[in-house]
Parts: sequence; structure tokens; C-alpha cells
Amino acid sequence: MSKPISGPEIERLIQLLARLPGLGPRSARRGALHLVKKREMLLEPLAQAMKDVAENVKICSCCGNIDTSDPCSICQDPTRDDATLIVVEDVADLWALERAAIAKRCRYHVLGGRLSPLDGIGPDDLNLASLIERVASGRVKELILAVNATIEGQTTAHYITDMISAYNIKVTRLAHGVPVGGELDYLDDGTLAAALKARTLL
Amino acid sequence: MSKPISGPEIERLIQLLARLPGLGPRSARRGALHLVKKREMLLEPLAQAMKDVAENVKICSCCGNIDTSDPCSICQDPTRDDATLIVVEDVADLWALERAAIAKRCRYHVLGGRLSPLDGIGPDDLNLASLIERVASGRVKELILAVNATIEGQTTAHYITDMISAYNIKVTRLAHGVPVGGELDYLDDGTLAAALKARTLL
Repeated sequence: MSKPISGPEIERLIQLLARLPGLGPRSARRGALHLVKKREMLLEPLAQAMKDVAENVKICSCCGNIDTSDPCSICQDPTRDDATLIVVEDVADLWALERAAIAKRCRYHVLGGRLSPLDGIGPDDLNLASLIERVASGRVKELILAVNATIEGQTTAHYITDMISAYNIKVTRLAHGVPVGGELDYLDDGTLAAALKARTLL
Repeated sequence: MSKPISGPEIERLIQLLARLPGLGPRSARRGALHLVKKREMLLEPLAQAMKDVAENVKICSCCGNIDTSDPCSICQDPTRDDATLIVVEDVADLWALERAAIAKRCRYHVLGGRLSPLDGIGPDDLNLASLIERVASGRVKELILAVNATIEGQTTAHYITDMISAYNIKVTRLAHGVPVGGELDYLDDGTLAAALKARTLL
């Protein structure tokens, strides 16, 4: 497009919206139009919300979580148990576990990625130094490696296991198996084999 | 979720993002996380772009287009021909026609919707009064009704045709037919029938 149709401001908004994950140029245009039409109900509150987040958001210096306070609300929470530490790749994984409300009493450690030599991501790029610190403090009794079940995730898990082998800590990983509600017919062989191997008594 | 995981500001950003078309709660969370991670590259510029648009955007009092100037850049453009007026339902349709660069010399009129009695949208809710004004000015020679090929769109087209029948103006509509690149097998009967009826000499 040689010349913007609707002013440079709207054009810029469309271009920036298109950089959100899951939005392409077409849906960015739809989004921008929707925002313009709902100026008071959506556009202005959203601009303000983004400004607030940009001003207030911090990365927790303890666990790597994203929050508006540092240490984050989870690290500050005195009711949580220091003995169990769940290691996740990304803040999104931490959110998923918290949403599921299955690990309410645990603390987290966000790596901020996974080892991926092909992408040039090595141990120094991950939040590993502070993980060793937390483990060395002696309060952690069990480390749950809730990394993704991908090659990179598993490589990261092995690296961490090696790294902290000197400390006498129980290291566990999430179970592999059939997803709840999943159909066997659609599962890959690896998952089926893992589920069969880890079968439990009824 | 009883208590926000990551501070009320981020929670509010997620809720507002989820109200964009095409984004659900899950993709809004992904988007918010992406924004937080790219604070300087994306979050701050986007907040500023939204503020700029909210402050500067106007609805053109002549044609109903959205722009940062009133009259809009298309209405102000002296190289465009007043004789041909393309009537569209929505600004998105105007953008689509302008992007296709097939009607560069025409002017537009944005209705801001379509007649839909079931949704309670009547003639008074559309930008029709100013359309009559523009038609009555005598400069318009052809009105191209580029409304959607839906029941509501066609109803709107008929209503406009009746409304301006007193003025001696050519009224046309977009052709129905096979979309370029489309396969007959996937087309509905109505489109096929229309395409056959309007067949052209090779």
C-alpha cells in the first residue's frame, strides 16, 4: 500500500497490533477498526491498561515470574511451602499451573526458555544461576521439572538434573500418559508406550 | 480465578485484549505475556499508538469513513471523481476496495451497517440522510452499491434504490459469480446459477 487510507496513526496501530501472536494483518485491521468504533469502551481503557502495565510490571528477581511487585506475589506468599519448587520454562506455564489450582502450595522457578543449541540458547541464557542459589539455600526438598515434553524441554530437564546432582534433592518430572478426555486412536506411539509402561493399579 | 496471579494491571490488560475480535481468553493471555516481554519494542509503542488514535480519530462528516482528519483524506482528495459514488456497509469494506486499488478515482459513502429488522437496525440507524444529500447535490452520476451479498445487504441495496429513484441516477451493484481462483465444486448453487446467468463472451 503506497499511501495509508486512514491516517498514519491508524496505520501504525494496525502494524503494531499485527505483531501480537495470533493476529495477522487482516485480523489486526479488524481489531483496529473494532477499537476505533469502541473508543470509550475499549480503545481508551486498553491504552491506559497498557501504559499501567508498562510502568508497573517487573520480573521477579527470585523466581523470574512477571508481576507488578518484586518479589512477585507468589514468592511473597507466606502460606506457600518452600520445600517444593516447580521449574517451568515460561511464565505462561506458571500461569497454566496456577489456573489449574493444582499446585497452590508450591513455589515456582521460571527458566525463561529451554536449552536449544540450534537456536543458540545455552545454559547462560536461562535463569539457572538463581535456581542453584535457591537449591543451595537448603530449603528446597523436591524439584518438580514441569518442562515441556519436547526434545528441548527434556534436554533442559537432564541438564538441570546433572547440575544439581551434588545437592541431595529429590528431582521429579510430570508423568507422561493419556490426556484426560483423550482418545487412544489419536495419540502418538510414544505417549501410548509411556502410558502403558506407567500403568497404575485400579 | 479468585485472585489474579500476576497483579491487577496485567489481569485487566488480559481482559481488555480478550475483547478484541479474534482473540479469546487464551490468546489474550498469550498476547499480554508477549507484550510484557517486549515492553520497549511493542507494549509502549502500542499504548502510545492507541492513545494517538483515541485522540485523533474522527468520523468523516461527509462519507462516514474513519480518518484522522474530517473530511477524510478521500473526501479531500481533489483528483477523485465526484460522479461515481461507491456505497459500502462498513469502513472495513472501504479499506478492502482501497487496498485492491480498483476504485482509486471514486468516492465512497459508508452506511455504518445494513438494514436488519431482526437486530432492530432500521433506516434511521444508517448514514442515509447524508447519502441523499450527496445524491441531491447533482454531482453523482452513478451509485455503485458495494454491499455484502447477504440478505441484509441486498435488502439495504433495494431500500437505497427505492429511496433515490426520484433522482435520475444510474444505480449498479457488484457482479455475482465465481471468485477468481475459486473451484466450482465448492461453490453454492446460488452463486453457480448467478455465474451461469451472467456468463460473458470469451
